[in-house]
Amino acid sequence: MDDPAPARSAEQRKRDVLALLEREVDLWVASASADGEAMLVPLSFVWDGARLTMSTPLASKTARNLMRAGVARVALGGTRDVVLIDGTVEAIRLGAEPELEEAHAQATGFDPRTLADEYVYLRLTPQRIQAWREDNELRGRHLMRGGAWVV
Amino acid sequence: MDDPAPARSAEQRKRDVLALLEREVDLWVASASADGEAMLVPLSFVWDGARLTMSTPLASKTARNLMRAGVARVALGGTRDVVLIDGTVEAIRLGAEPELEEAHAQATGFDPRTLADEYVYLRLTPQRIQAWREDNELRGRHLMRGGAWVV
Repeated sequence: MDDPAPARSAEQRKRDVLALLEREVDLWVASASADGEAMLVPLSFVWDGARLTMSTPLASKTARNLMRAGVARVALGGTRDVVLIDGTVEAIRLGAEPELEEAHAQATGFDPRTLADEYVYLRLTPQRIQAWREDNELRGRHLMRGGAWVV
Repeated sequence: MDDPAPARSAEQRKRDVLALLEREVDLWVASASADGEAMLVPLSFVWDGARLTMSTPLASKTARNLMRAGVARVALGGTRDVVLIDGTVEAIRLGAEPELEEAHAQATGFDPRTLADEYVYLRLTPQRIQAWREDNELRGRHLMRGGAWVV
């Protein structure tokens, strides 16, 4: 393996995570059914400064899994610039929060309000955030615990 | 959303998927516990032309989940160059397949044989492969079904 860059400070990682949340449009969402079947899909999201909101068909496995579990684990960035977020999930029906729906459409370029299929918004409140690039950053990768930044 | 590139043909997508499997070092692995807790981690892998082999600590959630389920869903590439692979998983203990272990170490730059923690190799045989870039490629995204390329 090539020599990696020096490990970033916790403060730098937090800044990088927040910049990524502002900049990125898509993330990976893992979910599981009650009987232990894993699901993984990419979804677009909008970041409001504290929470991420995605939208997916109400009948999809991901929506059903997340609404059942009430929690989600999502990944942003590349596999060598990892941001893993665990959080609680709240389902928001279409029409319930017009400002959020507008912000989501603006940020993602797709608008579930215009589609024939019934969609649901899923709002994730981060409880735990980990961020690392190479092995030398595995230590110190926990940036948020219990919903609070550790830095 | 910007105008996307024209949708690729199935043949082109298959070539792109195979090239990605040769080129990429890491993927995202989703797994679930028996009682429906989802897990998501990045892992390095080696592609042998037909199967992907990853390695992770035997005691990790991902190893335990995949060995229980016998199947995995992994994602390669970016969220706008998606390759999703569902497949069957076979666990291989250290020492059982020396050639595979050497190929894994060469491809990934890390060698579980040298580590204090007990690792296990997890070999994924693709059964279903989907690939798409933008919305215009959702149609025709199924490139493999039942372990056979559809093209």
